[in-house]
Amino acid sequence: MGSPLKDVTHINNVQLDEAAGTVVILDQSQLPGRTVLLTLRSAQEMYDAIYQLKVRGAPAIGICAGYAMYCLARQIAANGYAAFAAEFHRQKEYLNSSRPTAVNLSWALQRMEDVVTAAKGKPVAEILPLLAKESRAIHEEDIAMCTAISEHGLALVKPGDGILTHCNAGPLATSRYGTALGPILLGQERGIHFKVFADETRPLLQGARLTSYELQKAGVDVTLICDNMASIVMKNGWVQACFVGCDRVAANGDTANKIGTSGVAIMAKYYGVPFYVLGPTSTIDRNCKTGADIEIELREPSEIKEKWYAEPTALPETKCYNPAFDVTDHELISGIVTEKGICRPPYTTGIAALF
Amino acid sequence: MGSPLKDVTHINNVQLDEAAGTVVILDQSQLPGRTVLLTLRSAQEMYDAIYQLKVRGAPAIGICAGYAMYCLARQIAANGYAAFAAEFHRQKEYLNSSRPTAVNLSWALQRMEDVVTAAKGKPVAEILPLLAKESRAIHEEDIAMCTAISEHGLALVKPGDGILTHCNAGPLATSRYGTALGPILLGQERGIHFKVFADETRPLLQGARLTSYELQKAGVDVTLICDNMASIVMKNGWVQACFVGCDRVAANGDTANKIGTSGVAIMAKYYGVPFYVLGPTSTIDRNCKTGADIEIELREPSEIKEKWYAEPTALPETKCYNPAFDVTDHELISGIVTEKGICRPPYTTGIAALF
Repeated sequence: MGSPLKDVTHINNVQLDEAAGTVVILDQSQLPGRTVLLTLRSAQEMYDAIYQLKVRGAPAIGICAGYAMYCLARQIAANGYAAFAAEFHRQKEYLNSSRPTAVNLSWALQRMEDVVTAAKGKPVAEILPLLAKESRAIHEEDIAMCTAISEHGLALVKPGDGILTHCNAGPLATSRYGTALGPILLGQERGIHFKVFADETRPLLQGARLTSYELQKAGVDVTLICDNMASIVMKNGWVQACFVGCDRVAANGDTANKIGTSGVAIMAKYYGVPFYVLGPTSTIDRNCKTGADIEIELREPSEIKEKWYAEPTALPETKCYNPAFDVTDHELISGIVTEKGICRPPYTTGIAALF
Repeated sequence: MGSPLKDVTHINNVQLDEAAGTVVILDQSQLPGRTVLLTLRSAQEMYDAIYQLKVRGAPAIGICAGYAMYCLARQIAANGYAAFAAEFHRQKEYLNSSRPTAVNLSWALQRMEDVVTAAKGKPVAEILPLLAKESRAIHEEDIAMCTAISEHGLALVKPGDGILTHCNAGPLATSRYGTALGPILLGQERGIHFKVFADETRPLLQGARLTSYELQKAGVDVTLICDNMASIVMKNGWVQACFVGCDRVAANGDTANKIGTSGVAIMAKYYGVPFYVLGPTSTIDRNCKTGADIEIELREPSEIKEKWYAEPTALPETKCYNPAFDVTDHELISGIVTEKGICRPPYTTGIAALF
């Protein structure tokens, strides 16, 4: 087992079992009903875990992919560098096809293969420890990044504050503290307590199934609400800040995140509640000038009408519009919290200064 | 069977079967999966239909109660006025206990008993036709009121407009056209078509189960969305007006309606979309000065975490906040559409002028 993390959440979403040469993941598809640890040994098992969203969240997928390649490398029977490198490449391409649009997946896989390439001609026995080291580095760097984001975010709130969050950008999706949930969990570890309101986040219910789960397990005071209750919760004066994650940030600060985020930001502005986006600088896409350049993924009507339910909630012929993300205008965002510090408006200059 | 309504929705939620002496209702608790007509004959059956929300929506409950009292009166075995009136009163009190807080229920029941009281000493055979007439009048007056609201609302939009609605204020809850859905269905009947976006309306999903059902059945172009998608739909430029119903309107125009309504209003204001409240003047409570005087009903966490689902979406110990309504500030409302016409800001004077 890899060095255990002192983790206030008691959630180790992805771990390396060094002795067994396996990756152990918490099966997110079974939460919150069942806490099941899955041991992944074969390439097929690793592919399926990513494809079937048993491990999800871009950083978590990247961490899993790093450990997966190390474990698979240990299983390669080839003697000689050339055969080893060829088989390593084949396995890497296979895993990469599990979720082709996940940036962190291909990034982590490439980073592992770069180790093999740089060790050209060396004996396999010498390469394996380098791969172990690199996979741990990917994990540790993510922890350091989440920790830095959490520290910066924690400075934005004071003990006892109410914090509203949408979707899930916590430990399950990342490492250790998470991003949007990072300040809350880092605070919890230090005895600084908040009152958190978690939007359930229809249609996939990540807020109910994952966010309220991981905050509850960490002992945080969390209250689950339906997405349409954010307005009354803010009107009641119970929220001093909104913390959300991000899937892509444009050069002007426009932010794509889980569907519904922009509505939360509009309500926060109306009620005078500061609205913060938390995420690593790797999420900022400087090639993307504004939010208008961000394509929004449309998903199946069945996610709205059928998924989770004992029976369908609408007629089979009823149309649904099911965008997975929306774009929050930069003018609604009070700050973008990265591992390098907090960007404030005007974002065009603030973001450029980060790089 | 009572005079059939020419109903564009093909939904007759409450009907009198004159020949059989029964009330026939569409069982709303089984929608949208099953379209089941229930025949109510005994007082127990009528009580259960109301108590178990098989008939729901304040006006629909009132209409049902009127027909129910007529049918029950026909079954009273008593000869002589005194015995008849006593038994009528007993039945009325019994039905009234089915949902004690539903204003329209007690109002309709009292109206029926007033007929009996006014006919003091007359033979039962003479009273029964008066009760039949009164029960039909309750229904017809509601139709006239909904029609007037629909006409006024229809003047606010133009053919092809996108209309967003929240919860259910359509034919199932009222009569014929409904209130918030009235302009849409009256338009449909006249060949004026709109593109409707129906918020699913968590946690009880009235938008999915009822609104999208009745609009779909009426042939309206309806698209079901999750509540948190209202922002992107408005941002896309697809919405030219929001139409919602109301549970109580204060003297200053603050409006209590289904949870989430205030969020829709805030987003509409942000995107420059007019936001209209539609309802009868009987919903305006002039004793209620502002929305702060309106008490908000809190409901069970199980409605958020368990109801409808194959398995719970959050841990048993996770708290939920589950308000059934919220209050939309009058400053967010572009107009209040009543059977007497459209109130515009400033509402304090506009509402006073209605009465």
